[in-house]
Amino acid sequence: MESIDIGIIGLSVMGSNLALNMADHGFSVAGYDFESSFTTQFITDKPHSGVQGFYDLQEFLHSLTKPRRVFLMIKAGKPVDTVIEQILPFLSDGDIIMDGGNSFFKDTQRRFTYLSEKGIHYFGIGVSGGEKGARSGPALMPGGNIDIYENIRPVFEAIAAKIEGQPCCFFIGSDGAGHYVKMVHNGIEYADMQLISEAYRLLKYIGGYTDLEISKIFCQWNQGELNSYLVGITADILAECDADGTPLVERIVDCAGQKGTGRWTSIEALKQGVDVSIITTACNVRVLSNLMIDRSKAAELIGHPIREHCADTNFVEQVRRSLYTAKIVAYAQGFSLYRSASIHYGWHLDFCKIAAIFRGGCIIRAQFLNRIMTAYERHPELSNLLFDEFFYGKINENQASLRDIICLAVQNGVAVPAFSSALQYVDGYCGGTIGANLIQAQRDYFGAHTYQRVDKEGSFHHEWKEHYKK
Amino acid sequence: MESIDIGIIGLSVMGSNLALNMADHGFSVAGYDFESSFTTQFITDKPHSGVQGFYDLQEFLHSLTKPRRVFLMIKAGKPVDTVIEQILPFLSDGDIIMDGGNSFFKDTQRRFTYLSEKGIHYFGIGVSGGEKGARSGPALMPGGNIDIYENIRPVFEAIAAKIEGQPCCFFIGSDGAGHYVKMVHNGIEYADMQLISEAYRLLKYIGGYTDLEISKIFCQWNQGELNSYLVGITADILAECDADGTPLVERIVDCAGQKGTGRWTSIEALKQGVDVSIITTACNVRVLSNLMIDRSKAAELIGHPIREHCADTNFVEQVRRSLYTAKIVAYAQGFSLYRSASIHYGWHLDFCKIAAIFRGGCIIRAQFLNRIMTAYERHPELSNLLFDEFFYGKINENQASLRDIICLAVQNGVAVPAFSSALQYVDGYCGGTIGANLIQAQRDYFGAHTYQRVDKEGSFHHEWKEHYKK
Repeated sequence: MESIDIGIIGLSVMGSNLALNMADHGFSVAGYDFESSFTTQFITDKPHSGVQGFYDLQEFLHSLTKPRRVFLMIKAGKPVDTVIEQILPFLSDGDIIMDGGNSFFKDTQRRFTYLSEKGIHYFGIGVSGGEKGARSGPALMPGGNIDIYENIRPVFEAIAAKIEGQPCCFFIGSDGAGHYVKMVHNGIEYADMQLISEAYRLLKYIGGYTDLEISKIFCQWNQGELNSYLVGITADILAECDADGTPLVERIVDCAGQKGTGRWTSIEALKQGVDVSIITTACNVRVLSNLMIDRSKAAELIGHPIREHCADTNFVEQVRRSLYTAKIVAYAQGFSLYRSASIHYGWHLDFCKIAAIFRGGCIIRAQFLNRIMTAYERHPELSNLLFDEFFYGKINENQASLRDIICLAVQNGVAVPAFSSALQYVDGYCGGTIGANLIQAQRDYFGAHTYQRVDKEGSFHHEWKEHYKK
Repeated sequence: MESIDIGIIGLSVMGSNLALNMADHGFSVAGYDFESSFTTQFITDKPHSGVQGFYDLQEFLHSLTKPRRVFLMIKAGKPVDTVIEQILPFLSDGDIIMDGGNSFFKDTQRRFTYLSEKGIHYFGIGVSGGEKGARSGPALMPGGNIDIYENIRPVFEAIAAKIEGQPCCFFIGSDGAGHYVKMVHNGIEYADMQLISEAYRLLKYIGGYTDLEISKIFCQWNQGELNSYLVGITADILAECDADGTPLVERIVDCAGQKGTGRWTSIEALKQGVDVSIITTACNVRVLSNLMIDRSKAAELIGHPIREHCADTNFVEQVRRSLYTAKIVAYAQGFSLYRSASIHYGWHLDFCKIAAIFRGGCIIRAQFLNRIMTAYERHPELSNLLFDEFFYGKINENQASLRDIICLAVQNGVAVPAFSSALQYVDGYCGGTIGANLIQAQRDYFGAHTYQRVDKEGSFHHEWKEHYKK
């Protein structure tokens, strides 16, 4: 008794893979699941000398060294609260509960406070990398009490993905900071996936390439500055054929689900007053994709431009440049949200280290993240990634391509909402004027909201006259 | 005592104007403000035989006939709860409290339930039209208990704006329905204003017209299908000059505030899973507009296409068609949100009547709303306004103009985020495919989320292979 290093509650694929990963690194692991068949499966399917399965919650908890380290790998939401209440009676002062699910950061903040008052330490841990990452090295984003972090650091640093010898894991900030960073990571992932999907559709519907040809284009892109996990798997996916030789992707319904983290990111950004238009667009496309019946009805009623294949030999390169540019803007938006949240919640986020951990294990891992690290190393107080010389240099280099590609898409009726959002952000942010002076005037006209002047301090109200007969 | 028809708490400009409007229609009105100077101002500045000012809350409440009708015209949020608690001790069973502020609909739902349990009836009333509307006829959107509505109906129908003899006021639905409809109304208003601002900037920066010329263009547009309050006041605003003859709008800072209802609408739409991209875009532009220092820095670092004036004689007409088309999409999105909310909250909203009340008093009043009424009269179960023959006819008629104008803007670096969102919605919704099949495949690849097939029922997981060396 009291001899096992860490306990995991929840032994479905993510939990059991993390357990095996910990055991591989020399930690003894106790596993428990409220569904006993999961425990049985865990100890029989994947036997490992370092892991032990339990069928009794109390026995499980009593098997752990003190302070107990209990890692929850269960469904986010109500179940987390339920399990916390179930284990609390068996815990002692100073024990540590960690939540590795995709919990909403405000729930984590609430639980952190609630458990602190009971003498229990609580960590919300963002875990990225899916089942493979869990087994062989995820990216980890722990948030909680920094003074207690040393008690769990060795385990998490050991199991995390390594890049250039450094673990993709570091202490993010207090209470819900880890889950927050993971939430926005997922939002960025939505944006990345949507941008890739738009590039694919451009190559297909305007370039006239087959799925296999597009697979090779993505493979080639993956050798250059677009090198990333998502570009790589897209190449794989497009090369995959169904039994009859048809590309498998053509057999998949044009309708994608979402689990909510992208939507949370968009809602949070609206609350913070940060523009993450590309992430929100990606959420909206998934929403639209679900309206299958309406969409097919709309396609019948509303005409569509006749699509003409682009004969420009430079087309593929222009799409590549557009994708890279839009990706820069998506990350600039996501990191702007981190910056706002860091101030708002007092988390003192280290943007450079956040980019560093995303490089391994994560779905959004990419060479590109090194550029973000460099930017924040150069200018830790950067208010927007676009102000770094590398990034604005790329925007300047590529904006003409992005403009041309969007125009082609617009004239051919190929939806490119995320590409468009990226360019509109650039034109709104960098274009000098934005037209808000007229909006101020309108608000003063109908609501006496007053306005500011460019030449004088203060708030002014004007008695607007009617110049025309209505 | 107990002789006055209705009492208003909160005598700033909205409250006092509504009081005078009620008095004009033969209702006796008691006015009270927690700031006694407002009461004094109310009775001295705008004396009216039908209104009476009070300095004592208890006296004020005892002056009302039973059931008492107490109308709150105070700042939304905490103050409403505070005032409710202050007046509760003096109220009797069956009395009616009405909140005419821009309260968040969930607060209204909560207060409705809370007060019901105490035997007090509660109405959340959307009031649109600003101070002028309040005085001479606002649009009113009451939500609460329909069985009690008859007690307040005569007052509200009397003071409301009239269109074709009908009051712009009808019972919307239970609990928070009135404030919900007002919230989305404001979201649509954000979209409308943003679209007008983009049309203005196109005419200015690509058309090369002066503000006064643009004023005349808007005046002309106001004679046709774009006829609306906002287009009319834009014509007025652009004709207004500063003391030295410079158009006043050029002296106004390019930075606009927001009070939150547009943002609430965007957040609510994300929660409902409804795409209101144009409203969200309008919120984001206001957010960006506030980053004055960053924007001017960005304008220095990031190059901008050299703008060339469009020589096409058809340009102004194309902008007009684009504006009208984008406006249709904005309303289609807003009404889709109403539809979703109606089902979700069980409100049984009458979309035709909602469009009808918006025709008078409201900031978004427009000829165009008659088209929406007709659409819902023809097809009460319309799942999207674009499915009405008038609206899809207009999209078909005008989409080429919208495409041309967006391309011109994109190539000239004139931000048109709302115009773009409108077209992207059309192309996503009506373009047949949307690329979500690739996203499903990616999610199955990295997270084993499974996918649906076009040719078989069920959920499938594929063992994706690596086709290329990474």
